[in-house]
Amino acid sequence: MAVKGLGQIDQQYDGSKIKVGIIHARWNRVIIDALVDGAIKRMKELGVTEENIIVETVPGSYELPYASEVFMKKLHPEIDVVIPIGVLIKGSTMHFEYISESVTHALMNLQNKVKKPIIFGLLTCLTEEQAMARAGIDEGKTMHNHGEDWGAAAVEMAVKYGSL
Amino acid sequence: MAVKGLGQIDQQYDGSKIKVGIIHARWNRVIIDALVDGAIKRMKELGVTEENIIVETVPGSYELPYASEVFMKKLHPEIDVVIPIGVLIKGSTMHFEYISESVTHALMNLQNKVKKPIIFGLLTCLTEEQAMARAGIDEGKTMHNHGEDWGAAAVEMAVKYGSL
Amino acid sequence: MAVKGLGQIDQQYDGSKIKVGIIHARWNRVIIDALVDGAIKRMKELGVTEENIIVETVPGSYELPYASEVFMKKLHPEIDVVIPIGVLIKGSTMHFEYISESVTHALMNLQNKVKKPIIFGLLTCLTEEQAMARAGIDEGKTMHNHGEDWGAAAVEMAVKYGSL
Amino acid sequence: MAVKGLGQIDQQYDGSKIKVGIIHARWNRVIIDALVDGAIKRMKELGVTEENIIVETVPGSYELPYASEVFMKKLHPEIDVVIPIGVLIKGSTMHFEYISESVTHALMNLQNKVKKPIIFGLLTCLTEEQAMARAGIDEGKTMHNHGEDWGAAAVEMAVKYGSL
Amino acid sequence: MAVKGLGQIDQQYDGSKIKVGIIHARWNRVIIDALVDGAIKRMKELGVTEENIIVETVPGSYELPYASEVFMKKLHPEIDVVIPIGVLIKGSTMHFEYISESVTHALMNLQNKVKKPIIFGLLTCLTEEQAMARAGIDEGKTMHNHGEDWGAAAVEMAVKYGSL
Repeated sequence: MAVKGLGQIDQQYDGSKIKVGIIHARWNRVIIDALVDGAIKRMKELGVTEENIIVETVPGSYELPYASEVFMKKLHPEIDVVIPIGVLIKGSTMHFEYISESVTHALMNLQNKVKKPIIFGLLTCLTEEQAMARAGIDEGKTMHNHGEDWGAAAVEMAVKYGSL
Repeated sequence: MAVKGLGQIDQQYDGSKIKVGIIHARWNRVIIDALVDGAIKRMKELGVTEENIIVETVPGSYELPYASEVFMKKLHPEIDVVIPIGVLIKGSTMHFEYISESVTHALMNLQNKVKKPIIFGLLTCLTEEQAMARAGIDEGKTMHNHGEDWGAAAVEMAVKYGSL
Repeated sequence: MAVKGLGQIDQQYDGSKIKVGIIHARWNRVIIDALVDGAIKRMKELGVTEENIIVETVPGSYELPYASEVFMKKLHPEIDVVIPIGVLIKGSTMHFEYISESVTHALMNLQNKVKKPIIFGLLTCLTEEQAMARAGIDEGKTMHNHGEDWGAAAVEMAVKYGSL
Repeated sequence: MAVKGLGQIDQQYDGSKIKVGIIHARWNRVIIDALVDGAIKRMKELGVTEENIIVETVPGSYELPYASEVFMKKLHPEIDVVIPIGVLIKGSTMHFEYISESVTHALMNLQNKVKKPIIFGLLTCLTEEQAMARAGIDEGKTMHNHGEDWGAAAVEMAVKYGSL
Repeated sequence: MAVKGLGQIDQQYDGSKIKVGIIHARWNRVIIDALVDGAIKRMKELGVTEENIIVETVPGSYELPYASEVFMKKLHPEIDVVIPIGVLIKGSTMHFEYISESVTHALMNLQNKVKKPIIFGLLTCLTEEQAMARAGIDEGKTMHNHGEDWGAAAVEMAVKYGSL
């Protein structure tokens, strides 16, 4: 019995009216680019227009929460939802653990501050292979591109829950 | 001596006046459905009427805190208590740990923001078998459906402690 | 050289004027009851009168922070200090870890919100035996009842530091 | 190459004008007393006068953040800096981990609330021997008394950064 | 396929107008000095002038968040971005873990309080060798000086995202 699996979409959401921001880190760029492409592709399928998707970058994942806050409050207040995208891979120090935990908390808490949904586009992987698989670009293409899930979640959250 | 066990109910609570929201993720859908059914069944036994139970969904557990906040503050301010329901199962990356921890904190802190009780309907399991057991649907039916506990807790918290 | 040990009381505190709330979970009831009894016994020795001790319950430990907040802000604003009491025991999932951590943080932070001291009455044990020992009810009576420490701490904190 | 070591003081700070509070737990009293003595000795060397050092106690380390807040906001608003001192030693349950983490966070966050510096005087040790060494009282006197560092940090932070 | 690597800069940022604060701890001074030098060197390459870089110190990493807050709010409100720099190395107690986690959270959250970007200049290493490598000063010069990344990130964040 296969109980695990993708959360099936409960209905078709119409993304033609929503505006989305994607802010991504530039570390692990090949993986990041695939994830960003996956998110954009899925959102377009749901009706989001190309001019309603704004893409911006930050150096690393630690910068995602602050940049997302400035992006939503000052630079693009018309945006309905943001997908911060970053790829963190375990190294030999504890950097991975402290960054992963603090960024996850900060993105979660940011929603209450900007009063809009934020989609969790962070991969927290133990190996590069895991990250590539989740971007749909490992050799065997063993998993789907998780960016697509994030794109679908962005449209659903903006349409169904909107702003606080 | 069996000291562990279900917290026995201290008295019969009357749920006939309360309104409950259930917001559940759609990952691991078979398990989620059993948990949602268990919560609804128990609440009805305690007098909650079917029209006073509103069910809504989100893509994954990360979306539960924000959706619950919008649900209680904007979409359904008449609601007395919310049961966010999600099933997180350990995978090969660290996604499970960071999501579990940040969602647990966010749901806890949300109570102070919405001034109403939120029941912790999150299973954080190491295997699918553990999750199925806690939804009362593993082969040997080794455990009771934890959704029933959440339904009972929702009625008690709304009746006994009400709003902040 | 025995450097570890109970924190010796620095002076005799007079509890005759203070009002205390005990809010306890109902899971692991035998252990909980012993802890509650220990706290009450110690507070009476320090002069707290029986009518100045109010006892209320919640289903499980996760409910302690919200119930304590409602209890202190709305139901019993005359209360000087609250002792939330719960017993968490490690199971096979990660439920223990996420609940223990979020409840500990929430009780700590609650003090600043209610402007009154909250005593940490949570046992976070790896086995039932550990919990029974700390309630003074294991077979060999290997440890003292920790509820007594909490009762003494409640009187001292209310008398010495009072409200914020 | 010895890169690790005590942070060398960058200049001589004059503590003759500052007022310091020391709030210490009473568990592991022998170690605590040595740490408190070390902090006071160092502060006197930097010019802090005896009447400008106020010492108060709490039962255990969990009480340090609330007591420090009351101490600085209500009881002694003239105080420039507080050194909360506690010694936590790993036991067989998870008490050590949850207390250590929540107290560390609470003391850190308290600085923003009281608008004054708080020095981290918490030892989080795995054995009593580790704690005794860091108080300068293990048999071989293998380490210096960390209370001295805290005393020096208190003077520097109060003089150089003052209040928020 | 080398997917990991430095986040490539997306464009040349002009740092000639920005003012930067560097606040560094004094523990592990040799490593810290190399990191501070790396950050300054990189910022100068991006046009930041020497008089627009203010350097201040604190005793240890725990002091970084409070000192950064005072620095940005009171002492140097003209500053556009701060780089707090500290080096934490795992010792035999749990001090490393609790300090690393609380400082990381506090620096992250500080951005929302001061409304300006803060660059994460904390090394959280398991050995001194790891820290020296990341400062570009281990014997084999196996890694680049991470201070340079922080300097580049400071210029980019101040220019691109500015204040909240």
